[in-house]
Amino acid sequence: MFDRAAKDAAIRGGKMLAKGINAGPGAATGIIKFFADDAEAWVKEHGKPDAHGVRKPEGRVVLVRKETSPEDLRGMQAAEGILTAFGGASSHAALVSRQMGKVCVVGCSDLKIDYNARTVTVKGKVLKEGDFISVDGFTGEVFEGAIATRASEVVQVLIEKTMKVEDSKLCQQFNDLMGWADKRRTMKVRTNADTPIDAERALAFGAEGIGLCRTEHMFFNHIKEIREMILAENLEDRKAALAKLLPFQREDFYGIFKAMKGKPVTIRTLDPPLHEFLPHEEKGQAEMAAEMGVPASKIAERVKALHEMNPMLGFRGCRLGIVYPEITEMQARAIFEAACDLKKEGIDVEPEIMIPLVAFLQELKVQKKIVLDTAEKVFAEKGVKVEFLVGTMIELPRACIRADQIATEAQFFSFGTNDLTQTGLGMSRDDYGSFISHYQENDIVPKDPFQVIDFDGIGGLMEIGVERGRKTKPDLKIGICGEHGGEPDSVKFCHRIGLNYVSCSPFRVPVARLAAAQAALEKKK
Amino acid sequence: MFDRAAKDAAIRGGKMLAKGINAGPGAATGIIKFFADDAEAWVKEHGKPDAHGVRKPEGRVVLVRKETSPEDLRGMQAAEGILTAFGGASSHAALVSRQMGKVCVVGCSDLKIDYNARTVTVKGKVLKEGDFISVDGFTGEVFEGAIATRASEVVQVLIEKTMKVEDSKLCQQFNDLMGWADKRRTMKVRTNADTPIDAERALAFGAEGIGLCRTEHMFFNHIKEIREMILAENLEDRKAALAKLLPFQREDFYGIFKAMKGKPVTIRTLDPPLHEFLPHEEKGQAEMAAEMGVPASKIAERVKALHEMNPMLGFRGCRLGIVYPEITEMQARAIFEAACDLKKEGIDVEPEIMIPLVAFLQELKVQKKIVLDTAEKVFAEKGVKVEFLVGTMIELPRACIRADQIATEAQFFSFGTNDLTQTGLGMSRDDYGSFISHYQENDIVPKDPFQVIDFDGIGGLMEIGVERGRKTKPDLKIGICGEHGGEPDSVKFCHRIGLNYVSCSPFRVPVARLAAAQAALEKKK
Repeated sequence: MFDRAAKDAAIRGGKMLAKGINAGPGAATGIIKFFADDAEAWVKEHGKPDAHGVRKPEGRVVLVRKETSPEDLRGMQAAEGILTAFGGASSHAALVSRQMGKVCVVGCSDLKIDYNARTVTVKGKVLKEGDFISVDGFTGEVFEGAIATRASEVVQVLIEKTMKVEDSKLCQQFNDLMGWADKRRTMKVRTNADTPIDAERALAFGAEGIGLCRTEHMFFNHIKEIREMILAENLEDRKAALAKLLPFQREDFYGIFKAMKGKPVTIRTLDPPLHEFLPHEEKGQAEMAAEMGVPASKIAERVKALHEMNPMLGFRGCRLGIVYPEITEMQARAIFEAACDLKKEGIDVEPEIMIPLVAFLQELKVQKKIVLDTAEKVFAEKGVKVEFLVGTMIELPRACIRADQIATEAQFFSFGTNDLTQTGLGMSRDDYGSFISHYQENDIVPKDPFQVIDFDGIGGLMEIGVERGRKTKPDLKIGICGEHGGEPDSVKFCHRIGLNYVSCSPFRVPVARLAAAQAALEKKK
Repeated sequence: MFDRAAKDAAIRGGKMLAKGINAGPGAATGIIKFFADDAEAWVKEHGKPDAHGVRKPEGRVVLVRKETSPEDLRGMQAAEGILTAFGGASSHAALVSRQMGKVCVVGCSDLKIDYNARTVTVKGKVLKEGDFISVDGFTGEVFEGAIATRASEVVQVLIEKTMKVEDSKLCQQFNDLMGWADKRRTMKVRTNADTPIDAERALAFGAEGIGLCRTEHMFFNHIKEIREMILAENLEDRKAALAKLLPFQREDFYGIFKAMKGKPVTIRTLDPPLHEFLPHEEKGQAEMAAEMGVPASKIAERVKALHEMNPMLGFRGCRLGIVYPEITEMQARAIFEAACDLKKEGIDVEPEIMIPLVAFLQELKVQKKIVLDTAEKVFAEKGVKVEFLVGTMIELPRACIRADQIATEAQFFSFGTNDLTQTGLGMSRDDYGSFISHYQENDIVPKDPFQVIDFDGIGGLMEIGVERGRKTKPDLKIGICGEHGGEPDSVKFCHRIGLNYVSCSPFRVPVARLAAAQAALEKKK
């Protein structure tokens, strides 16, 4: 957080530039970078921490973007904070920042960003790349210049806990509190984690499993191979590219399974539309062409062919695995090979394979068959078997309405409340910034529906989903893996409608444990 | 339709190029034009019908586009047929074509259109602007060259009926059949019409009112003024631009009310996102800048600011009228002024004002208040009152779930099944072309959900909407105005769940009357 006096001085000095949506708590000061590559390179060169683990101010970066995309992941990891002009509380920038524990302000619509000139203009004031900027992720405020920061006590506790320095008094208090909470709560708390580091951090915070492991984040570390797969013009070429991806995926899953020490891990098969893996600008396409030895025109053509008017409602989720079953097959193989290898090493693994964006029973049936067939093959090859489940995200209104049918095949449900909110309200998390503040000021929506579940509406759909799903399978395990799983009021709602677990980003796990206990106590009363 | 022998010859001659989605029945032959302006200009100059009302082949145009947008309306009206590379059965091209009674094939993904070179390449074959092309709107087939067409008997009947030549034997048979149907059916049949011509045609086909009048189509005829409104930087300028639009809207409504002779007319307030009214390409922006006397950079900036990642889920529908209440006010004023003027002339008018994209009760409340306040003002000014209703589209899953709340303010519901299908299934009608054929071939969806209502899913949401809405208001009038309202199986479904009326494009009105009668008979059994 900012040093209180330093922030007050900045406000009095007229340094406050604008206000966006607070999307990742904390405070960050650093120099402006507009491109993820530049941010990464700058921090690598100038951002070496000193002996006390502290970076010099000029070695810190705030990544300033119109919006972020998965291509920006490494730059976001390097930055202290992320500031975007567009997007809401569940935009890519916000989701990823929370997961990484980064400070983040999104939807700051007063920012006019010019990528070519490398400037950001706010109400007539022009800031250049390299200028200092400060963002307050608690309030959404954006300041010109540097402001001194200090670690908040809570964050300090969490970090110490992660670092296993458990002898401090604060840590003791934290552990006591969490212990009391754990005794009362009936819902499990899992975490959304895509890497062994995230998984370990979440375990230290008390996570009881992974509720959402997004496989596409792994794909971005092997972008060349996934791009080969996307450019493939026939099944054979696509399978060849997937074969190259297989060992990477297997290794990734192996790492996560191992970190989770036998706790359940829910892995979602590929979800985002394929065009997210391709560069959309000419420069990036030229670089990709050079790297892959194909004409740039071919890449431009593929990008064009994959272009969608409404990517949120397009060719993504299980639709990918249905049209290209070889993708699901590769992913299932990677999961089972990793699990079998670990079992041979004496580590029990319980993968839960989750099919995204299911609306029709038949979609789940088709994908489940691929998973089951692949499991059988891998178990025969490895001479060992592991227990596993196949379930589905419930993230489309139709899935709630037809939960009775889907439950005949699903071994678990997990509510994807981000997408369910987007579709149920007809409101894109990337676009609602243009009207949501007006809506909140005029009491049209009580709270930002991407931060707190819209109980009456989206919650109503969830209730139908739970009721109809359990009508088919009374003991159906149901969780939530949308960002709402770490928001206290939403966690309590999940308890009230009878969910078995919530899952949230690692830093929110303690919050969820506490809220789950409060919910249990409230219900008792 | 095509002359059977001529079409067979084309197939034998290898002239068939590709197959898309059949989106507007009939057959069309003409020369290729890629731009709506060019199509309009060409037909104006070369397309004069001869003494028998027939155009020379070289005076006919097939408009070939990647996709169409509201800017293309006049060009579509001039063309014989419309062919698009993208989009599905409910894309803009398909919806508008059906309403206009134009032949249309959409989502023909084999077409590679190059707007700069003015060519379309299909499987290696290059066709230039000015070359002949033929499209079969019944089958989705696309042919190189001209194919002789002849009027289908059914269309002939419908046209004769419109022309009031009711003495033919076929017309007699048609009228008899419709008469029997009308005796049996309990659901009313309305039409979707935006112009007096459409309204008159639909009346001749037996429409009992207008179920959907889209005001944005009128806006396109006064594009300069609406663009002034969008560019306005403050409330004053916006109101000045709206004041210029008012007389045009009033005149439009006057014409439609008059054509409908006292039958109910449901008018939807502005729905599409504002960027649809601005040119997205540099050339168009330069032209607009010259015409309006503003720098092109200002227009480019506004287009950029209005850009959305998922326009379907963005700043549209009642969200526009809530952030800019002056738009709703102008539209309400135009409606009431026209209605009062007609009443003074002795013609009774029953406007039903319909607020689109409502998800929250409060949205409807806020918009309804503007309408009621405006009505009161206009009635006082004119010294006359008209009866009217204020209701809402039910086109978002949340609106179905909270129909009980919304019904406290709504005087009628109208299901917008196009958008309800898009949001309920998480499937954009512009983007589902990339996977829907695979889905249909593999029995994942039984029928194209944009052609036939997905009874189990979207139908399930509708049932909840009807049940909860009527729990609040037992006699609530409920209709449907999505394209499904003219599809026989969907019409029967609407009857089964207790809707009061269906509304569809003028040419489908007789089909809906027949299906409604069949549904009533089936239910009786």
